[in-house]
Amino acid sequence: MTSLEKHNRMANAIRFLSMDAVQKANSGHPGLPMGAADVATVLFTRFMRFDPKNPNWPNRDRFVLSAGHGSMLLYSLLYLLGYEDMTLEDLKNFRQLGSKTAGHPEYGHASGIETTTGPLGQGIANAVGMAIAERKLADEFGGELMDHYTYALCGDGCLMEGISQEAITLAGHLKLSKLILFWDNNSITIDGAVSLADSTDQHARFRAANWHTIDIDGHNPDEVAAAIEEAQKSDKPTMIACKTTIGYGAPKKAGTNKAHGSPLGDEEIAETRKALGWEYAPFELPEDILDAWRVAGLRSTKTRVEWEERLKGTKTEIKAEFNRRFAGELPGSFDRTVQKYKQQLADEKPTLASRKSSQNALEVINGAIPETIGGSADLTGSNNTNTSQTPSITPDDFSGRFIHWGIREHAMAAAMNGIALHGGLIPYSGGFLIFSDYCRTSVRLAALMGIRVIHVWTHDSIGVGEDGPTHEPVEQMASLRAIPGLQMFRPADAMETAECWQLALESAHAPSGIALTRQNLPAVRLDYNEKNLCATGAYDLIPANEAEVTIFASGSEVGLAVEAQKTLDGKGISTRVVSVPCMELFFEQPEDYQKAIIGNSPIKVGVEAAIRMGWDSFIGTDGIFIGMDGYGASGKGADLFKHFGITAEAIVEAVEKKRA
Amino acid sequence: MTSLEKHNRMANAIRFLSMDAVQKANSGHPGLPMGAADVATVLFTRFMRFDPKNPNWPNRDRFVLSAGHGSMLLYSLLYLLGYEDMTLEDLKNFRQLGSKTAGHPEYGHASGIETTTGPLGQGIANAVGMAIAERKLADEFGGELMDHYTYALCGDGCLMEGISQEAITLAGHLKLSKLILFWDNNSITIDGAVSLADSTDQHARFRAANWHTIDIDGHNPDEVAAAIEEAQKSDKPTMIACKTTIGYGAPKKAGTNKAHGSPLGDEEIAETRKALGWEYAPFELPEDILDAWRVAGLRSTKTRVEWEERLKGTKTEIKAEFNRRFAGELPGSFDRTVQKYKQQLADEKPTLASRKSSQNALEVINGAIPETIGGSADLTGSNNTNTSQTPSITPDDFSGRFIHWGIREHAMAAAMNGIALHGGLIPYSGGFLIFSDYCRTSVRLAALMGIRVIHVWTHDSIGVGEDGPTHEPVEQMASLRAIPGLQMFRPADAMETAECWQLALESAHAPSGIALTRQNLPAVRLDYNEKNLCATGAYDLIPANEAEVTIFASGSEVGLAVEAQKTLDGKGISTRVVSVPCMELFFEQPEDYQKAIIGNSPIKVGVEAAIRMGWDSFIGTDGIFIGMDGYGASGKGADLFKHFGITAEAIVEAVEKKRA
Repeated sequence: MTSLEKHNRMANAIRFLSMDAVQKANSGHPGLPMGAADVATVLFTRFMRFDPKNPNWPNRDRFVLSAGHGSMLLYSLLYLLGYEDMTLEDLKNFRQLGSKTAGHPEYGHASGIETTTGPLGQGIANAVGMAIAERKLADEFGGELMDHYTYALCGDGCLMEGISQEAITLAGHLKLSKLILFWDNNSITIDGAVSLADSTDQHARFRAANWHTIDIDGHNPDEVAAAIEEAQKSDKPTMIACKTTIGYGAPKKAGTNKAHGSPLGDEEIAETRKALGWEYAPFELPEDILDAWRVAGLRSTKTRVEWEERLKGTKTEIKAEFNRRFAGELPGSFDRTVQKYKQQLADEKPTLASRKSSQNALEVINGAIPETIGGSADLTGSNNTNTSQTPSITPDDFSGRFIHWGIREHAMAAAMNGIALHGGLIPYSGGFLIFSDYCRTSVRLAALMGIRVIHVWTHDSIGVGEDGPTHEPVEQMASLRAIPGLQMFRPADAMETAECWQLALESAHAPSGIALTRQNLPAVRLDYNEKNLCATGAYDLIPANEAEVTIFASGSEVGLAVEAQKTLDGKGISTRVVSVPCMELFFEQPEDYQKAIIGNSPIKVGVEAAIRMGWDSFIGTDGIFIGMDGYGASGKGADLFKHFGITAEAIVEAVEKKRA
Repeated sequence: MTSLEKHNRMANAIRFLSMDAVQKANSGHPGLPMGAADVATVLFTRFMRFDPKNPNWPNRDRFVLSAGHGSMLLYSLLYLLGYEDMTLEDLKNFRQLGSKTAGHPEYGHASGIETTTGPLGQGIANAVGMAIAERKLADEFGGELMDHYTYALCGDGCLMEGISQEAITLAGHLKLSKLILFWDNNSITIDGAVSLADSTDQHARFRAANWHTIDIDGHNPDEVAAAIEEAQKSDKPTMIACKTTIGYGAPKKAGTNKAHGSPLGDEEIAETRKALGWEYAPFELPEDILDAWRVAGLRSTKTRVEWEERLKGTKTEIKAEFNRRFAGELPGSFDRTVQKYKQQLADEKPTLASRKSSQNALEVINGAIPETIGGSADLTGSNNTNTSQTPSITPDDFSGRFIHWGIREHAMAAAMNGIALHGGLIPYSGGFLIFSDYCRTSVRLAALMGIRVIHVWTHDSIGVGEDGPTHEPVEQMASLRAIPGLQMFRPADAMETAECWQLALESAHAPSGIALTRQNLPAVRLDYNEKNLCATGAYDLIPANEAEVTIFASGSEVGLAVEAQKTLDGKGISTRVVSVPCMELFFEQPEDYQKAIIGNSPIKVGVEAAIRMGWDSFIGTDGIFIGMDGYGASGKGADLFKHFGITAEAIVEAVEKKRA
C-alpha cells in the first residue's frame, strides 16, 4: 500500500464513520466530514500535538471545528485517535438523547472537544482567543512551557457571518502567527451554490486583514502538508483555502447541497462504498487502518512527556503558579485581599459611579490575581476596565494585560470564550450594556459551556443620558437574565461592586455580567461585613419587623429605595429594603431563604430603571413596579429619571396610592 | 470670494453649528461633523437630490449617517438646507429632553432623518437595504419613477463591526452600483489611534467584496466632487475613503481622540474661530452663507416637479399602485383574500408544521400583496419563506422577490430595516429563532423606529431535535418579548398562522416576529370565524364556565393544552384553554378584556417550550409552568418533549398534584 493509498483509507475511515452515523441517526451533516477528511487526516496524523491519554495537557495544540455541524468529523477523529471516552458505541448513538455525540460538538461532553460550536463564525473567534491566550502565556511562562498552534476549520457560512471579520481583522492586527485556519472551500451552502449569495474573494479579504493565505487542493495530502508547513513558518496568521468537494465520494450527491445536511440514504451510501472501495460494514473498520490511526494518536506522547519533564524542572514557584492557573484556582490570598478592601470601603463610604467602583475593585483584583486579562471594545475610558497593572497588549508585545478589542463586541465575547477555554487566564471585557445585544450569541455559548468569562457592561440604564434611546438599555437586564446559566450582577454601590466582582471571579464554571452605572451612586452598604452579602443574590439591606412595605431594588435604584424607605418610615409606614444584586444567585438559594427574603409585606415594590419582566418573582403580579415600560430618551440623566418617574418620590407616592 | 472660499465658509457653518451645539449641551461629538463637513457640503450642495419642502418625495436620494454619533452634522445640514422642521432653536436644544435633536439621529423626530443610527455599522446595512429597494422598485416601476442614489457616511467603528462585512459583501455581490459609501477615514477612535486595534487595508477589503474604491483628501472639495462623479459611473458599489482630520480646525484637539466625544471647551472653540476666521457668535450665521445653503436646498426642486409630472403622466393603475405602495397601505382586497383562505383552512383542518402553514399563508399573501419581498439567511428550504411568486433576485436581475441573504442574519435584519424605511416594499425574512440573537440590535432598532419588517423565525423550540442546544431556542421568546414595540407571534396551527401573518402585515408601524415550528401541529382552530381571534393577543380557545383550571399556552404547546383539557374534563375537572399567540397585543387590550381572559381559576397553568419569564403575568407567581428551565439537548424532538416534561400528561399530572 503506497502512502497515498494509506492516507486515502485513513481518510475514508472518517468518511464512512460519518456517513454511517448520520444514516443511523437519520439526521445530521455528512457533507463536511467527507469533504474535509483529507485535511483532517493530514493535520491530525502529521502535525497536531496532543495526547489522547492526557487530553488536557496545557501545551497541546488546539483544534476548533468552527463549522460545528460537521461534528462527525471531530467525533470520528477522537475515536480513531484513541480518546478513551469516545467509543464506537458513542458514534452509533450520534444525535440521540443522552449521548456524548450531540448534533453539534458540546464542550464537556468528551475530551478533545475544545469548544461548543454550531452557531456559525463563533469557532473562528474562539480560536483567535485561544491563540491570544497561547501567546500571552508564552510571554509569561516562556516557550518551554507554552508553545502550541491553534488550528480551526471553518466553512463558507462561518466566513459570511460578520463575527468572522471582527475575528480575522483582530488576529491579523495582533499578528497571531500560530493561528492556522482551514477554509473548507466547497462552494456549497444549504441553499445551493455559494455564488447564490456571495462573491467575495476570500484570499484578498484575508490579505487585507494582514493574513497569509495559501490555496490548495484539499484532497491532495501533499498539498495539505506543505501548506501547514508554510503556515507554521509565517509571521502572520494563515488561512489555507482547501478546495474540497462536499460529500466527497458520494457518486450522486457529492458537490451538491444534498450532501450538506441530510443522510445520504442507503442506496447512495452503498454506491459510495463501491466508489471508494470500502468493503466494510457500517462502523466496521479494517484493523490496519484503526491501528494506523491509533499509532498516530500516540505520536506526541514523547513530546508531552518531555514537556512534563521541563515543567518538573521549572522553579517551584513558577511550576506552582502554572499549575494553579491551569487548575483554574484563584490565589489563596484572594479572599483576604478582598476583606481588606471591603474594610477600606466601609471606612470611606465613597459616592462613585459603579463603573468607577469597578475600576477601584479591579485595581485590587488585578494586583492579587495575575491571570486576569482585561480589555474594552474601544471604550476604555468609559468602561474603566484598565488599571495600573494592565498596560496594553500590542501586536509586538504581549507582556501587557489589556486588549484593545476595537469596535468588535462580538469577536471580543467569542475570543474571551476561547481564552477561558484555553486555560491559564481569566478574561474580562469592557463594553456598554446596550451593546451586549451585539454579542449575545457568544455570551449564550459561554453560559451553555459554563466557563468563566466576565463581562463588564457599563452605562446600564437611562442614566446614560444624552446619548439617547439607542444607547440606553431598557430590556437588556431582562434579556440577559433570561440566558440560563449567566450570572447577571447589578451592584448598588462600591461595596456591592467589590462583592459582585469576587463572586464573578470565584465562579469557575459560570460566566458573569456586571452591569454598572455611568452616574454617581451613594454608598448604601455602610458597615463592614466579612460575609459576601451579594452571594445570596438578594438580601435585607434595611430590615424591618412586620414591614408593611418591602422595596426590592437593584443597582442605581437601591439608593432611591433607601431614600424612599426613610420617607415612608418617617410617615409611620414600616418599610424594608431588599437589595437584589443577582437574581440568578437568589433563585439558587434554599426555598426557606427565598421565602424569608420575599416576605409577607402587603405592599411589594420593585425598582429598576428597566422593564418589569422578571421582577414579578419578587413582587407578584399585583406588586408595584417603578421602572421603564418603553424606550428611553435623549436628555440629561437626572432629567430622564424624573421624566420616567423613577425617583424616591415616585416610590413613596405609589405606595401611598396603594394604601389609600 | 473664490468658490473654494465659499465652500470653506459653507463647511465652516456646519463646523461651528456642531461645535457650538455640543458645547451648549455640554455633551456630544464635535469631531465627526467638523471632519466630515467638507464631504457633506459637496455632497449636499452639488449632488444629493432632495426637496426640503417635500422631504418624503419617493425618488429622493437617501443619505444615511451610519456614524450616528456625528448627529450634529445631519442636524446642521437639515437646518442649513431649509428643512422647515429643523430650526435654529432645535439645534440649540441639542440633546435636551423632548427635543428633536437627540444625541443620535432618531427616525421620525424630523424630516430628512432617514433612519435611526448610533449602534455602529447598522447604517451601512440600512443603506444596503435602501439600495436594494431602489433597484427592485426601478425594475418594477421603471427608471422614470425610481432612479436615485443611496449615500452613507461611516466611520472606522462602523467598519470594524462585523455587520459591516455582511453588508459590504452582500452589496458587492448584488452589484448595488448606486450605493456610495463615504468612509470618514480620520484614523481615530475613542481609545486613540485606530492602529491601537486595527490594521486592515480597507481598500483591499472592499475590493475583495467586489466594490469600487477611491482614495481622496476629504478636505479637498474638488477631489470629493470628482470621486462622487466617478462613483456614480461605476457598475459596482463604491467606497470613497475620505482622509479627514477629526475635529478639523481645532488647533489643539484636531486629529486626536479628544475631539471625538466631548465638547471642545470654550477656549478651544475660541481658538478654532480664530483659526478658521469665523467671526460670528455661537449659532449666528452670516447671511450670505445661509443664503447659499438655502439656494442649494432648492437645487432639486425642478427635478422633483418633473418627476411629479412623470408620475401624473403614468397610467392610472400604475400611478395608483405606486402611490398605494409608498403610502404603506395594503391592497383593499387583502382582508377578503384572507377570509377565503381561512374558510379553506376551516374545511381542511390541516396537520402541519407551522413553518409549512406559514408558507401556505405566504402563497396566498404573496399573490395578494405584490410589495412583499421575502428571503432567507441560507435556510430557504427550512424556513419555507419562498412561494410560487418569489423567484430569486440575482445580481443581474431584480425582477424576483426573494433575496438569498446568505449566512448573514445581522445584515439581513438591518437591510430589511432599510427596505422598510425606503418605502414601497414590505420585507420579510427567514431564519432560525435561535439566530435572532445574531441580529438583535437591528430588530431592536426596527422596534424603536416603529417600522414594518417581519421576521419569520422557524425551529422555535426543542422541537428542533437533533441539532441540540446550540440550535434550540429556550430564552429567545422571552428575550424578544422584552424588546419594547416588537410584536412576537407564536401561532398554534395553520389558522392562527394565517391570522398572525395578517396582523403582522397590517401593522404598518411595528415590526413583528413570527415563531414557527419545525414539527407538525394538529389544527386547534376548527371553525371559521370572520374575526381575527389572534388580534387580541390571547383568547378563549376552549371556554368553560367557572373553570377550576385555566391553561394558557402558545404555539406548539396549545395542542398539548387541548389534549390535557380533554383528559381533565373527562376527570370532571372543569378546564379552560386560552391560546396566547401574542403577549404584546394582549397587554394592549382594555383592562376588562385582560381580566376576563386571565380569569379567576384557582389553578392556572402556563405551557410553552421555553423559559417561564413573562408568563407570570398570566398565571401569577404561584401558577404552574410547564416549560424549560435550562438548555435543551440533542435528540429526537419527541424524545426531548418527553424528557423535559412538556406533554399533555405532565400538565394533567401537575394539575392533579396541585389539587391534592
